[in-house]
Amino acid sequence: MSNKAVNRRIILAERPRYIIPTANVFRMTEATMPEARDGQVLIRTVWLGVDSYLYSRLQRDSPFAAPVNIGDVMVGATVGRVEVSNHPDYKAGDIVHGFWGWQEYFVSDGSDIAKVDPEIPRATYMLGALGISGLAAYVAVNELVKLKAGETLAIGSALGGVGQIAGQLGKIKGARVVAGASGPKKCQYAMEELGYDICHDRTGRDFMAKATAEFAKAGIDAYIMLSGGKILDTALPYFRPNARVAVCGMMATYGLTSLPPGGDRTVLLLAEIMRRRLQVRGLITTDYLGTPLEAEFRKDMKGYILSGKVKPLEHIVKGLENAPSLMQGLFEGKNFGKAVIQVAD
Amino acid sequence: MSNKAVNRRIILAERPRYIIPTANVFRMTEATMPEARDGQVLIRTVWLGVDSYLYSRLQRDSPFAAPVNIGDVMVGATVGRVEVSNHPDYKAGDIVHGFWGWQEYFVSDGSDIAKVDPEIPRATYMLGALGISGLAAYVAVNELVKLKAGETLAIGSALGGVGQIAGQLGKIKGARVVAGASGPKKCQYAMEELGYDICHDRTGRDFMAKATAEFAKAGIDAYIMLSGGKILDTALPYFRPNARVAVCGMMATYGLTSLPPGGDRTVLLLAEIMRRRLQVRGLITTDYLGTPLEAEFRKDMKGYILSGKVKPLEHIVKGLENAPSLMQGLFEGKNFGKAVIQVAD
Repeated sequence: MSNKAVNRRIILAERPRYIIPTANVFRMTEATMPEARDGQVLIRTVWLGVDSYLYSRLQRDSPFAAPVNIGDVMVGATVGRVEVSNHPDYKAGDIVHGFWGWQEYFVSDGSDIAKVDPEIPRATYMLGALGISGLAAYVAVNELVKLKAGETLAIGSALGGVGQIAGQLGKIKGARVVAGASGPKKCQYAMEELGYDICHDRTGRDFMAKATAEFAKAGIDAYIMLSGGKILDTALPYFRPNARVAVCGMMATYGLTSLPPGGDRTVLLLAEIMRRRLQVRGLITTDYLGTPLEAEFRKDMKGYILSGKVKPLEHIVKGLENAPSLMQGLFEGKNFGKAVIQVAD
Repeated sequence: MSNKAVNRRIILAERPRYIIPTANVFRMTEATMPEARDGQVLIRTVWLGVDSYLYSRLQRDSPFAAPVNIGDVMVGATVGRVEVSNHPDYKAGDIVHGFWGWQEYFVSDGSDIAKVDPEIPRATYMLGALGISGLAAYVAVNELVKLKAGETLAIGSALGGVGQIAGQLGKIKGARVVAGASGPKKCQYAMEELGYDICHDRTGRDFMAKATAEFAKAGIDAYIMLSGGKILDTALPYFRPNARVAVCGMMATYGLTSLPPGGDRTVLLLAEIMRRRLQVRGLITTDYLGTPLEAEFRKDMKGYILSGKVKPLEHIVKGLENAPSLMQGLFEGKNFGKAVIQVAD
């Protein structure tokens, strides 16, 4: 690196006003290249994970963690390569992962990064199947809905970061997996490559009718809620008694500025919970970091990936500058798999 | 009994059109006196339990059990005295309980009745504290919300059939109990006689403000939902992380003919479930009849009553003809304790 090198970063320019973040929300800026002092490493970002749950960190009030301040670098899971090391535990060329956000370079004292296990086939898996998305799916399937063989698992988003892992875990458990996805290509992939039993095209005109018919046939034992909204409404009447629901995400409704019109349907939801003896639980995945369940997840998921039982599907887009539009696309169902930005080679 | 004796019965005349059943819904009729044949007993009804959950059996579609047909005797829990016995296990004068509904006489072959344990101080307790209401409270507190010492339990209805037992169980467990009730007399009773920590007068003009302030102070660990509606809305922001909610009743919204106006607040409820990691479970009490938990309940509750740890509060009204208005009154918070009709001396 020369002295002239700069650190390109994407900062939060304004808080989103709409459910789908617009171009105005982020701005690319150039900062002085950071330097690794004694006990520090300089990391070059190679990949960023783009996750819908980060939307909540853009809002003024984030219930999960401190909101990103205006002018600060956008947060997010990252994988990078050590360029300069003045730290005894790292050497140049090491591949590390962390949460240093949407910027090309980052300096760490080693406390907020970890080396990527070299046995993992692709380091990007640390952003998806082996990252927060995978952990969310694992906790939801094993701990919240406690899925059993022979049951039917319904998932809103077949191929999203969490949905694709939840569905594959469902198949490993011997369950029937029913999902929705935006577009026939995704549905075909989910059924042919990932082994889902049913995948409905959410963009199809008759999605609701078809999904309803299939839900009626399957009878739902467990539901992983990722987007909420109409899919939950469609599925609700087909929940079996004592069905379990994991509320993992509400992509359909993040950033709503007013309530959906019409009457208050809370009463219908509560009536269904009562009459069907549902068990509904909320999930904030970061609660499970550092727990024995996370350790179990890392071990199991690595095994599933190495044996080919879980095939992580990634949607990789090149260029840091494309991170905002990739994030917008998540809310429009444009990604085909876990959304990742490749920042450098 | 003479041959002229008749069996006065209250039948379902028409399905309710409003949330509060009107006078038109029921009609008193006179039927021929039934006779006990060989292997049968003739029972004279002494007490009827009047329960809000029976409202659902009046509707065209009951999710819990077959709806009562137009012209049929209104269903409900009952306690009576054997008048004539042609059954080896029963003799005249035995006090029995069952579910023969709103009528003065009933003939049974013994399969749908049981003797009331003579150690129970009052046979009416079989309709409340030792009946379905008590079982609902017991299952909700012990199994659904798994209340622990030092926690705060919130209950919508302080002195209703289920609420009064749930609150007293909460105190036995060493929890703080916060409740709402209609009227200052009820609140005083709940706090002074039953030992609740806080009871708010729901009819007071500033109920919501006061309740909100107390919820904020207490921080809710467990919530027994009996009426739903605005009380849940008020409490929701004060739920602690991982709080548990038992959806046991929806008195505020039974029989709604249209959705409450305004936007769809389902999204807010689901967001709270997610961000607060709530565990919401529905309860249909009859699921637990015949289970080990029911046996445990009968043993524990009898012990609590005999030792004075649970003081069942009953609101007894004389006269079968008053059953409909007592049921209407439940929906207006007019009962002061478990609602019971005394049909005979």
